[in-house]
Amino acid sequence: MSLTAPLRGVVPPVCTPVDHRGEVDTASLTRLVDYLIDGGVHGLFALGSTSEVAYLTDEQRATALQTVVTAAAGRVPVLAGVIDTTTPRVIAHARAAAELGADALVATAPFYTRTHPKETAGHFRRLRATVDLPLFAYDIPVAVHSKLSPALVRELAEDGTVAGLKDSSGDEGGLRRLIVELGGREGRAQGAVPHFSVLTGSELTVDAALLAGADGVVPGIGNVDPAGYVRLYDAALAGAWELAAREQERLIELFAMVDVGPEQEMGRSSSALGSFKEALRLLGVIDNGATAFPQIPLSGESVARVAELLRGAGLGPIR
Amino acid sequence: MSLTAPLRGVVPPVCTPVDHRGEVDTASLTRLVDYLIDGGVHGLFALGSTSEVAYLTDEQRATALQTVVTAAAGRVPVLAGVIDTTTPRVIAHARAAAELGADALVATAPFYTRTHPKETAGHFRRLRATVDLPLFAYDIPVAVHSKLSPALVRELAEDGTVAGLKDSSGDEGGLRRLIVELGGREGRAQGAVPHFSVLTGSELTVDAALLAGADGVVPGIGNVDPAGYVRLYDAALAGAWELAAREQERLIELFAMVDVGPEQEMGRSSSALGSFKEALRLLGVIDNGATAFPQIPLSGESVARVAELLRGAGLGPIR
Amino acid sequence: MSLTAPLRGVVPPVCTPVDHRGEVDTASLTRLVDYLIDGGVHGLFALGSTSEVAYLTDEQRATALQTVVTAAAGRVPVLAGVIDTTTPRVIAHARAAAELGADALVATAPFYTRTHPKETAGHFRRLRATVDLPLFAYDIPVAVHSKLSPALVRELAEDGTVAGLKDSSGDEGGLRRLIVELGGREGRAQGAVPHFSVLTGSELTVDAALLAGADGVVPGIGNVDPAGYVRLYDAALAGAWELAAREQERLIELFAMVDVGPEQEMGRSSSALGSFKEALRLLGVIDNGATAFPQIPLSGESVARVAELLRGAGLGPIR
Amino acid sequence: MSLTAPLRGVVPPVCTPVDHRGEVDTASLTRLVDYLIDGGVHGLFALGSTSEVAYLTDEQRATALQTVVTAAAGRVPVLAGVIDTTTPRVIAHARAAAELGADALVATAPFYTRTHPKETAGHFRRLRATVDLPLFAYDIPVAVHSKLSPALVRELAEDGTVAGLKDSSGDEGGLRRLIVELGGREGRAQGAVPHFSVLTGSELTVDAALLAGADGVVPGIGNVDPAGYVRLYDAALAGAWELAAREQERLIELFAMVDVGPEQEMGRSSSALGSFKEALRLLGVIDNGATAFPQIPLSGESVARVAELLRGAGLGPIR
Repeated sequence: MSLTAPLRGVVPPVCTPVDHRGEVDTASLTRLVDYLIDGGVHGLFALGSTSEVAYLTDEQRATALQTVVTAAAGRVPVLAGVIDTTTPRVIAHARAAAELGADALVATAPFYTRTHPKETAGHFRRLRATVDLPLFAYDIPVAVHSKLSPALVRELAEDGTVAGLKDSSGDEGGLRRLIVELGGREGRAQGAVPHFSVLTGSELTVDAALLAGADGVVPGIGNVDPAGYVRLYDAALAGAWELAAREQERLIELFAMVDVGPEQEMGRSSSALGSFKEALRLLGVIDNGATAFPQIPLSGESVARVAELLRGAGLGPIR
Repeated sequence: MSLTAPLRGVVPPVCTPVDHRGEVDTASLTRLVDYLIDGGVHGLFALGSTSEVAYLTDEQRATALQTVVTAAAGRVPVLAGVIDTTTPRVIAHARAAAELGADALVATAPFYTRTHPKETAGHFRRLRATVDLPLFAYDIPVAVHSKLSPALVRELAEDGTVAGLKDSSGDEGGLRRLIVELGGREGRAQGAVPHFSVLTGSELTVDAALLAGADGVVPGIGNVDPAGYVRLYDAALAGAWELAAREQERLIELFAMVDVGPEQEMGRSSSALGSFKEALRLLGVIDNGATAFPQIPLSGESVARVAELLRGAGLGPIR
Repeated sequence: MSLTAPLRGVVPPVCTPVDHRGEVDTASLTRLVDYLIDGGVHGLFALGSTSEVAYLTDEQRATALQTVVTAAAGRVPVLAGVIDTTTPRVIAHARAAAELGADALVATAPFYTRTHPKETAGHFRRLRATVDLPLFAYDIPVAVHSKLSPALVRELAEDGTVAGLKDSSGDEGGLRRLIVELGGREGRAQGAVPHFSVLTGSELTVDAALLAGADGVVPGIGNVDPAGYVRLYDAALAGAWELAAREQERLIELFAMVDVGPEQEMGRSSSALGSFKEALRLLGVIDNGATAFPQIPLSGESVARVAELLRGAGLGPIR
Repeated sequence: MSLTAPLRGVVPPVCTPVDHRGEVDTASLTRLVDYLIDGGVHGLFALGSTSEVAYLTDEQRATALQTVVTAAAGRVPVLAGVIDTTTPRVIAHARAAAELGADALVATAPFYTRTHPKETAGHFRRLRATVDLPLFAYDIPVAVHSKLSPALVRELAEDGTVAGLKDSSGDEGGLRRLIVELGGREGRAQGAVPHFSVLTGSELTVDAALLAGADGVVPGIGNVDPAGYVRLYDAALAGAWELAAREQERLIELFAMVDVGPEQEMGRSSSALGSFKEALRLLGVIDNGATAFPQIPLSGESVARVAELLRGAGLGPIR
């Protein structure tokens, strides 16, 4: 499915179920794609941070992306993360993603290296020039330890290098300033050409981002409750802001699952990604709640807390 | 004016005008207080970061606070910042503020030192026990280099140590989680006792914070356009969220003034605080746009840009 | 005692003993000064970070400095920390220190604020111009969250603003580059005029710093074992580098006391400063091992570990 | 050449020369290996940060490593960096390196992800258990944004998981504490079994590290002047510490080349790695001074400054 129109709506970063050996569980992943599309989502983001892309070998990345593309079957567009340290390595992933049928690419700034904004600009430009797919800039300082400045994003938007931004910086004020600079809520809604898609990765403030003029959201916990985010999005589209805020509050309560794993015992991704996967297992969507190595599994007690939060949010039945 | 009811609304951190020698210009400060109250604000925060509290000697702090208290004349409550490195030094400021007639105190976590959350909790408790005024916790990691965790704020709220939070952390998702944990938009609106005031210092996302259930805002640029923030607040109270968002967008455009000073030539406070003060001078409110030493003055070119932004936002006349 | 010659040797940052009410224990402080001078130290740094300057009110700072000056009685020079957020506040401390008889001042870059290197340069120049005492720049990013660049230090050294550097940045490579730029081990030893004193605050690599050409050391744990650091310094002066290294290793073993307080229960200064003070109490130098509020006291078990480390380092008798 | 004895001495991270298309220049790389071995180095570290490993595709990594192994021809051991985000991806590189004949592996903590120390320990253990080559832990917080704690390194050293540490943390005090905990200068020199190799990556303080008891150094600028580092090492072995310090000072002056590229125009790796490669080109060792994309090339003026520094350090002739 080609990405002709600007991307809008709910675009969850698709979890990558793995089996006990750490291999991609394609049957579970196929069911997850159906679960998300049945929930009403508008696109899928494969091989993102929530997909544990950093834990997948090249072969596993290919398996996961192919599975998502096949399962989506053109019903919604599939964006593919091409996450690696620098341009030459990212281009290799981008070529693979294009061959596997991705509709768009999502790339971060270089990481591990010490990179200047001019070099980051060159990175996105070379990538766009080399692989002919719409390109989203992925701003995720918590992972790459640099921030894409609004000035840089504007420059890359205005010259057509990037078709959109996936903002996981947590800098809501900065995102707001960028949207205003790009024409504001109404200027952008009236369809400046070409439309630049602003997607927030801040899943706890989606009502706010939509009120500010963002086009959509990439919510990790949207794996667990896609229909909730779709209701939130629809309420916002209808101008029912207090309804949107109530839905957001329900999702924030559900989000408490990311902290079920004790901080002294495991990293934050073990806890957050483990809780999403255990929730999907409890809901009968995937077969196994395991995360990729070296992440640490959740305890039975933590899983019980996940189940409790699912029930509290009205999700179920729990198996 | 005692702070009997929970604090709500627009509470600007009052700029401290200084003359060419760096001394507090009390006549200008008195006019500024009138300008803010005429603009409809609901409270005043003296001796905050925007007030350049870190640049004022103890004598200058006393002069500034006394001037604000006198000028406010009980029309709105006056909160006083008691900013210093650790408890014994903060208590000295708190006693001075109480004597000068402050209605409430605003304190940060300890800084310069390496402090544990348990020590920070002890800091707030000792301060509350020693000086009998309502106490606001001021979360400002950019200045003190630690973050008040939601768990710590909840603990201090629930045992009555702090009456409210002034959140300048920029972590909108975390603030949202805190509000939900404290009862959410409706639970809090229905008046859990005692009400805990959540004030955001994120002046670019005020519509969002109010939609989320925050009680008010402490906007630095509210010095320049208090009436704009009051309109934004009133629109939100009335549930006119898109009107609120439009007002927010206008204020974001005005906020561009904080970047008029080139990054190679001066620090971010020289530029931001200098722009607020030059704007107030151009609007005829204060006599001198100077900031305290060692901040660097804005160039004529930068001041011209401030004037242009004022005109663009419909403010004036410019002198 | 005026600081006519360049400062060289062991200059401990003098702990500030406090009693159970948190007031400066002048009798204990006087004994500590004697203990340090008897240990052979070449100068005293009062009101430094290790002195808990950030926890002392202005009155307590005056008491502590006066006590150190009086007790030193001109036997060694006394440097006074003038630690506060910005220039106007630092100048107030500097004037007080000058009146109390300090021989030199030690100032950090501004903190709490967002300050540009040009502003930091202005800060040191204004301070030097206002109070006529030799000025040391104190580079301590862990406290002030900015680093004095070698270029800035060179500029301030070459124009005579600062007489020396107290380097607590932990950036040994950067310090080495600075020394080479200032003439290197031999160029500086041959006495370039005016000599700029480089003092390291990195108490675990003093042999290395002296080999690199540093003039001296400001060791926190030098409060506990001043004679050990003097032996290390003397060995280095004599070119007995392996003897110096062995002494350094013994002091490193002793330094393990800074970690006796569990990280889950207290901040790093509670543990480190508490261990130094408990060690001094065990050695009979001061009466009370308490640190200033809101630091957390060491447990009996932690104090027992301090005693064990003292014995292991050959210090005692332990009371 | 199997790594039977503990690794000691000078082990430069070998630059990876590339041609104008960005492909590995194997002829130049072969000459560089000869230049280094002729300079007297004791080992070679291929595919490290200085080798631009983060900029090389898997194919290019294989080419570079194979070239180094072939050129070394068993004269010195070859360590291979296996740099990637997490365990499954690192294992793939480790298997490739083993097949290509590496004598040992060098791995960092996971990056991009948010990883707990327990997960990092699992990462090293799984890697060691999966590929049977001696494993070095590479502590490089500037790249991976976490620090290997001394406690973790000790644990992995004591259970035989890692054969050594390549410390590029810049935390010389912490490294010193680790060495003391592992037995100190003499305990380690007397040959505790199995000997754990401590290699410093801090190329400006090598005399100090060797005095402290480190076994060797991995100096980036050792590509340019391998013989200088070998002289420094030999002086230290002979106990001629002041001679070692003078050699270190000469190398520090040469190291100024890392700053020839202006900070406003390029990242720090463009400048540093570009200067090393241009120096090698000027010395006739490699054909092209280019760095990998998206790094920015040095200007002619910057290259002239590199030539000047080479001459100042007594290196040449310059072509």
